[in-house]
Amino acid sequence: MSRFFSKIITDIDPYVPGEQPKDKKYIKLNTNENPYPPTDNIYRAIEEAKRDIRLYPDPENQNLKNEIAGYYQIEENQVFVGNGSDEVLAFCFLAFFSEKKIAFADITYSFYPVYAKLLNVEYESIPLCDDFTLDLKRYRESDLPLIIVNPNAPTGAYVEIPEIERLLREKRDRLMIVDEAYIDFGGETCIPLIKNYDNLLIVQTMSKSRSLAGLRVGFAMGNKELIDGLNKVKNSFNSYTVDRIAEKVAIEAMKDEDYFNEITKKIMDTRERTIEALENLKFSVIPSKANFVFARHPLRDAEELFHALKERGILVRYFKRPRIDQYLRISIGTDEEMAIFIERLTTILKEE
Amino acid sequence: MSRFFSKIITDIDPYVPGEQPKDKKYIKLNTNENPYPPTDNIYRAIEEAKRDIRLYPDPENQNLKNEIAGYYQIEENQVFVGNGSDEVLAFCFLAFFSEKKIAFADITYSFYPVYAKLLNVEYESIPLCDDFTLDLKRYRESDLPLIIVNPNAPTGAYVEIPEIERLLREKRDRLMIVDEAYIDFGGETCIPLIKNYDNLLIVQTMSKSRSLAGLRVGFAMGNKELIDGLNKVKNSFNSYTVDRIAEKVAIEAMKDEDYFNEITKKIMDTRERTIEALENLKFSVIPSKANFVFARHPLRDAEELFHALKERGILVRYFKRPRIDQYLRISIGTDEEMAIFIERLTTILKEE
Repeated sequence: MSRFFSKIITDIDPYVPGEQPKDKKYIKLNTNENPYPPTDNIYRAIEEAKRDIRLYPDPENQNLKNEIAGYYQIEENQVFVGNGSDEVLAFCFLAFFSEKKIAFADITYSFYPVYAKLLNVEYESIPLCDDFTLDLKRYRESDLPLIIVNPNAPTGAYVEIPEIERLLREKRDRLMIVDEAYIDFGGETCIPLIKNYDNLLIVQTMSKSRSLAGLRVGFAMGNKELIDGLNKVKNSFNSYTVDRIAEKVAIEAMKDEDYFNEITKKIMDTRERTIEALENLKFSVIPSKANFVFARHPLRDAEELFHALKERGILVRYFKRPRIDQYLRISIGTDEEMAIFIERLTTILKEE
Repeated sequence: MSRFFSKIITDIDPYVPGEQPKDKKYIKLNTNENPYPPTDNIYRAIEEAKRDIRLYPDPENQNLKNEIAGYYQIEENQVFVGNGSDEVLAFCFLAFFSEKKIAFADITYSFYPVYAKLLNVEYESIPLCDDFTLDLKRYRESDLPLIIVNPNAPTGAYVEIPEIERLLREKRDRLMIVDEAYIDFGGETCIPLIKNYDNLLIVQTMSKSRSLAGLRVGFAMGNKELIDGLNKVKNSFNSYTVDRIAEKVAIEAMKDEDYFNEITKKIMDTRERTIEALENLKFSVIPSKANFVFARHPLRDAEELFHALKERGILVRYFKRPRIDQYLRISIGTDEEMAIFIERLTTILKEE
């Protein structure tokens, strides 16, 4: 421990992202990336952007905000953009939660408790029900600001819009953040609720459905006042968070609607086939509206399966944490990748 | 003021970056960008990076760290990288200064007081001497952690290495951050001091001398323990701050040493010619080791000159702040741009 560290450092316990292996080529089903690359349209954007690379980007990223606002039919001042949705969420914690107490599920995106410790936020964990759905009754009873991931990570479980609206309506003085990182794989976004609820902020990302994990673009949508708060925090932290290339490429990706529909449908179809194959292997699989599935085998230890798969060139995600330490989170790849995954998994299950 | 804001928001007063105008084409001498674009080598990097854009970047950005470490002949674990040096500085405030009191000059990079308010840091302003050099005696007397910009912004004034070493040596339990954003334009970096002083952290950027303002890459160098602290904070805020394209392009830019030497020399030569031309127009100019000059006219109001230049298509930076409200900060452009600047300025001075 360095004598120069602030008090904050003693307490924090950083987030550990899924492995980005460098040792060999794996079938990567561990970080919920999109198996399909973006279209060549992004190349045109890169060509344009690199010409002015010596100049700072627009600190407002106004063109990107306009594109997102147009796409979702909301106002331009209802959009905030950042360097990945992780950064957007960090700014949310600073802008809305610092020195307050909030609530989120015990099993959800594991970055939330990390932000909380770093940014001076207390939190209450609300346990998921036994079937890993959100315990909506307890959310309704609580007065604390909420974060909900919908569909939830790492479970894939989905909450219907009327339930979200009920939470918003019954506690209008409570802010609720809905993290929709995985919404494009079969869920319905609650963006249309923005106009009636000033206590709703939605966070999305281009890393999953838009195939741009390598580029780092996330965004938030909500009432103008909430967006103003995020802008104030961002402009007190880093004036230029989304670079010239990322901005232009993200705009192209938003425009590629046919391709977006095509690949998200493909991934959903592959997900359903994967669930069927896993169930044939006796796994129980939580119903998923995300680009991953969360599954356990009744007889085989999840951590052992994780290692056995890794040895055979397949990376999935394993969380050694209470309640979920017998589950594997498996990102949905291409049909070919999933066929190989199921084949190797079948072999592993036959062993011993 | 939204009922959902954290206490932090009431207090903060965001940084305002220099204008990135959208209304018309200006000669931009207002944000210290490099007038020369990077070489075509960066295009090769972009080609490579875009192939894997659907995958997350390496969260450690190890290849970029290795490149920087090799360039400056330090260890790989003595390098931290981030999304522009502004983000790196924000992480420094969190990692080392939160809930503490620090000191920096009254006239220096105006983002420091903004970070301080956002991230719960008290600060003491140490006034520059009348000639706008650092008041080194007062820095030596203080026990507070320090941030020094060298050369200073927006003045361009430079502190010699032995003075910096003296500060480090006399107070070994005080952390000192040296922000070397402008060091490559004629100053000498204090990177070699890292091996003897664990109380030194240096911050640099690719936005100025490496022509990559549009891409957002900054870095810090120091003792491994300090770098570990920055990594802990970064990994509690955003796992992937430098994207795939930015990382590869930054690596190419570090490799372009001949070009780097050529353009930094060109900019220094243009700076000296600009200073001469300004002095011929009766300006007093602070001796500068940066890619900008800070100048005042004995008879003409700086704010009026700023507006008159803007009307004539030239943007410079004006700060309406005590002690410097009669100065203009003028970034060094190409010889052609500076010739036009001097010509239009001459016209303006003849008017009235």
